Amino acid sequence: MENLRVVLVAPRNPLNVGAVARAMSNFGALHLRVVAPYERAFREAKSAVGAAELLQRAEEFDSVKEAIADCTLVVGTTAIGNREIKLPLRELQKATPLIRNRMATSQVAILFGSEKWGLSNESLSHCHWLMHIPTRKEHYSMNLGQAVAVCLWELERRERISAEDRRGRRDDKTGRRSHIPKARVGRPTAEAVEMISEVMLELLHESGYIPPRGKASAEEKLRRMLRRFDLEARDAEVFLGMMRKILWRVGSGGDE
Amino acid sequence: MENLRVVLVAPRNPLNVGAVARAMSNFGALHLRVVAPYERAFREAKSAVGAAELLQRAEEFDSVKEAIADCTLVVGTTAIGNREIKLPLRELQKATPLIRNRMATSQVAILFGSEKWGLSNESLSHCHWLMHIPTRKEHYSMNLGQAVAVCLWELERRERISAEDRRGRRDDKTGRRSHIPKARVGRPTAEAVEMISEVMLELLHESGYIPPRGKASAEEKLRRMLRRFDLEARDAEVFLGMMRKILWRVGSGGDE
Repeated sequence: MENLRVVLVAPRNPLNVGAVARAMSNFGALHLRVVAPYERAFREAKSAVGAAELLQRAEEFDSVKEAIADCTLVVGTTAIGNREIKLPLRELQKATPLIRNRMATSQVAILFGSEKWGLSNESLSHCHWLMHIPTRKEHYSMNLGQAVAVCLWELERRERISAEDRRGRRDDKTGRRSHIPKARVGRPTAEAVEMISEVMLELLHESGYIPPRGKASAEEKLRRMLRRFDLEARDAEVFLGMMRKILWRVGSGGDE
Repeated sequence: MENLRVVLVAPRNPLNVGAVARAMSNFGALHLRVVAPYERAFREAKSAVGAAELLQRAEEFDSVKEAIADCTLVVGTTAIGNREIKLPLRELQKATPLIRNRMATSQVAILFGSEKWGLSNESLSHCHWLMHIPTRKEHYSMNLGQAVAVCLWELERRERISAEDRRGRRDDKTGRRSHIPKARVGRPTAEAVEMISEVMLELLHESGYIPPRGKASAEEKLRRMLRRFDLEARDAEVFLGMMRKILWRVGSGGDE
């Protein structure tokens, strides 16, 4: 993410600038550039939760041209309304691998237009291609902060997954497990489950749930059901304790 | 997405509620539920860009219990701060396939807590498991609207890709799908599980398993345990019948 530049072109709403900064900070994209912001928007945004430092270090430019000068790939974002698209257009999940590849060796800029107008034709003319987040046709226009969050998630997502893959591969060679399995929850022995089964059977018998002659078939059904519960060991213990206590109550109650 | 319920628990900021609605509308998740919102937050949110209809149709509930009653899977979201997690925790990209599977057959609720406090322990006790969006350690807490946007994107993302896969597979040779998805066993609604929880609680109370003062904490523990059982729908019904019969016996026995 060190090579990514998120570029906001003419943002209007300070809350949006703050929200963008926050998403960037969440996902580790720490370089924000702002082109010709409404002065007020930019100044007020500086209070964004948890992203104050990032906003403080944000760079301000007068033009897109200057803001992207040191980047080797410039990707514009668009909600695709009625605008006539003159550039290659890629959906987010197809676009991110290309962006990542480039980020491995040089700086990439992703441009987001103003909330109201998107990117102007002048801004688009600086882009190599366009990217968009597929949304519902009936409501395609996304909130700026949310669009940035989704783009960064998708970029990060691939990074995280390929990092997992790399770890896996490395560990394969050394003969170690590729990841530490979460401590499997302990499972009760069949014997422990059977004990529950017996206590419940007695309870159901006592309470009249099981008719006197139906015991054998009820026993099987109950056992199968308890197996389906797929109890964890500690739960089996607790559950057995509960059933025993209830049985004790039923017994003593009935005997009174 | 028709089977997804996005549930906001005690949201405070109208801008956030509006932002959530907008992201939902963008990604085609049209069913919003709100639990105990600050009245002002909810009323003011109704102006959210492009999502007015969705907000208009949002359902309001007094408790989490009611808001999730008709869902078979309840997933909580967390930024994982210092809270001690007592539920299985899955990262977003691992969680979405499970959610989608369930959405194919029945309703799923994803819970988002208040901006300030996240989900309370009471809210968490209604969840089967937790999901979180991996973020930078130094700044893990995400904006509510952005978190919802990223979650929905990731859910949609898989759908889009698997739709592509299916098309791809169908096009391969025979023109038919390469595998028939297993018919998923039906799952009980949260309401059905809650009914079991209530009957058992009464039983445990009656039998003296739960000390008079420990009812609240016992209720949470019991609820969590029953979620872990991961009951099938028919088993839930049978199990409820059993517990009711026993309760009836305990009641009548004690009164004799």
